[in-house]
Amino acid sequence: MTAPVTLVEVTRGLAVESRHAGTVAVADADGAIVLALGDAERPTFGRSAVKGLQALPLVESGAADRFGFAVEELALACASHGGEPEHVATAAGALARLGLGVEALECGAHWPTNDAAARALAASGAGPNALHNNCSGKHAGFLCLACAMEVDTAGYIGPDHPVQREVTAALETAMGVSLADAPVGTDGCGIPTYAAPLSAIARAFARFGAETGFGPARAAAARRLKQAAWSAPFQIGGSGRFDTEAMQALNGRAFVKFGAEGVHIAALPELGIGIALKIEDGATRASEVAMAALIARFLDPSGAAGDWLAGQTAKRLTNWEGVEVGVMRPAAALLA
Amino acid sequence: MTAPVTLVEVTRGLAVESRHAGTVAVADADGAIVLALGDAERPTFGRSAVKGLQALPLVESGAADRFGFAVEELALACASHGGEPEHVATAAGALARLGLGVEALECGAHWPTNDAAARALAASGAGPNALHNNCSGKHAGFLCLACAMEVDTAGYIGPDHPVQREVTAALETAMGVSLADAPVGTDGCGIPTYAAPLSAIARAFARFGAETGFGPARAAAARRLKQAAWSAPFQIGGSGRFDTEAMQALNGRAFVKFGAEGVHIAALPELGIGIALKIEDGATRASEVAMAALIARFLDPSGAAGDWLAGQTAKRLTNWEGVEVGVMRPAAALLA
Repeated sequence: MTAPVTLVEVTRGLAVESRHAGTVAVADADGAIVLALGDAERPTFGRSAVKGLQALPLVESGAADRFGFAVEELALACASHGGEPEHVATAAGALARLGLGVEALECGAHWPTNDAAARALAASGAGPNALHNNCSGKHAGFLCLACAMEVDTAGYIGPDHPVQREVTAALETAMGVSLADAPVGTDGCGIPTYAAPLSAIARAFARFGAETGFGPARAAAARRLKQAAWSAPFQIGGSGRFDTEAMQALNGRAFVKFGAEGVHIAALPELGIGIALKIEDGATRASEVAMAALIARFLDPSGAAGDWLAGQTAKRLTNWEGVEVGVMRPAAALLA
Repeated sequence: MTAPVTLVEVTRGLAVESRHAGTVAVADADGAIVLALGDAERPTFGRSAVKGLQALPLVESGAADRFGFAVEELALACASHGGEPEHVATAAGALARLGLGVEALECGAHWPTNDAAARALAASGAGPNALHNNCSGKHAGFLCLACAMEVDTAGYIGPDHPVQREVTAALETAMGVSLADAPVGTDGCGIPTYAAPLSAIARAFARFGAETGFGPARAAAARRLKQAAWSAPFQIGGSGRFDTEAMQALNGRAFVKFGAEGVHIAALPELGIGIALKIEDGATRASEVAMAALIARFLDPSGAAGDWLAGQTAKRLTNWEGVEVGVMRPAAALLA
């Protein structure tokens, strides 16, 4: 097996203090490998990076339209949001369309991942509920699908529930692999997560971007979800978040989504390619720098998009007094 | 150069999802290497892991006694605390002994790293000040030394201030190396941090633990600081923190301290050895598991200490609903 490759360096003063190794696979919709760093076949849990694929049945089935889901609600179905008031309101609104309340969500509650939102919630005297869970929009989408399928919503997170069967089938079709014998784990929000070859995840997002390798209904669903993310990028992440800023800066040119444990994907429709990367140690700070470097390498945009990518690939690190102490930057392997 | 070695694995279901590589050096007070994994000479910023050494001049000079520092204040001088009310009160009390206020601190302000303390502070309508900074106790110690030296306290964080000259000299004596040409950076709290060979950091904590390789005054200072940490372990970190729990579980047998970017040290007095490790990617979650495995390997304690280490080396990971989804565990290299 090819070992992971150093992808990101963290400096302090003039020295490199820390290094992040990882694996990169870039593929087209047929699965042809455009770039591999490390073992592109590395089995990788897609985690929240594959939420775009997991939302395909919601749209393709007609469930989202039947219940009148708005653009914001479709974007939130693909999101790992910060639990800011706008996110919570969008999730609650989606549930209301279904005639359901927060108690229908099976994702669990956690404090908003946005620090300011968590402190404001605490200052209000309240605590978090499942609407604040970063996955609440995805789960509202699952519930919408269950309602449209006219099946029991309870237990919708289980691997044998009709909703998860549809979601898993969408993953398999997009990735072009069977997940029947894939390593399976439980995701943070309770649904199953499968380990697929990183190259298959890259191919899935090439298809998601180029809208090829799917039937027409699924291709249309991919288009709706991408356009929702580009129309309502705040819903995808929130204040100061990499994926939100990427969708804004690269509007229409890149669909970008991270997942826990250092997984990050991008679909670049104009090139017909998908990027999937996994930081071996699970660090999001590194997956963001590596993804920015890869997008810059393949799209090489000018103007505001180029400026944003330049900032993300030479990320200033400051201490509590605002003094610059170092930088995060892509390592040589990403720049070749 | 020997590459970093896989030290910690993070599983999901039955699969390994993420891996942390790093470097380990275990040395005695003479600098003899007891164990090396990876390049023991790796230049490594000691960061907050070396606060115990940085506090030596405070005690050795007589400054702490002259201003009546209590055991809690000595422990806090070695701490990276969570900004909980007890920590803030201890730091404020130390400053009061000097006739100084919070404005004398040059470490900068940040929200408490303890989430509950941060939310409680927000709920009170207040914001953080420099007392909440995890380094405020160390900085109170620096100010105490400046007062005893009868030098200007302003600028005490600068590399050329008499306080930092004393602190750097203490590091050099303990490590047995000159830092004059070492890579230097600015630490999170504004003071200089030097990159020393990992083996030299291990040797320094062998000396700190065994109280050898120092003159009698410095040896006595090391003893006072260790005893303070074991007497007031809450001050070292706080609620639920690894170093606090380690000092409690291994009372008198191990002095343990982490630093930013995955550095962790331990002094094991009864064996006359020091442990220093650096997780290549900077992850504290991994430095804790690796340190627990190394302490278990060398001390192999029974009873409550053994139980605590067993829990830290097979650390259950749960999702938001409390379902076990995986485990963090030492990799084979640490168990050999």
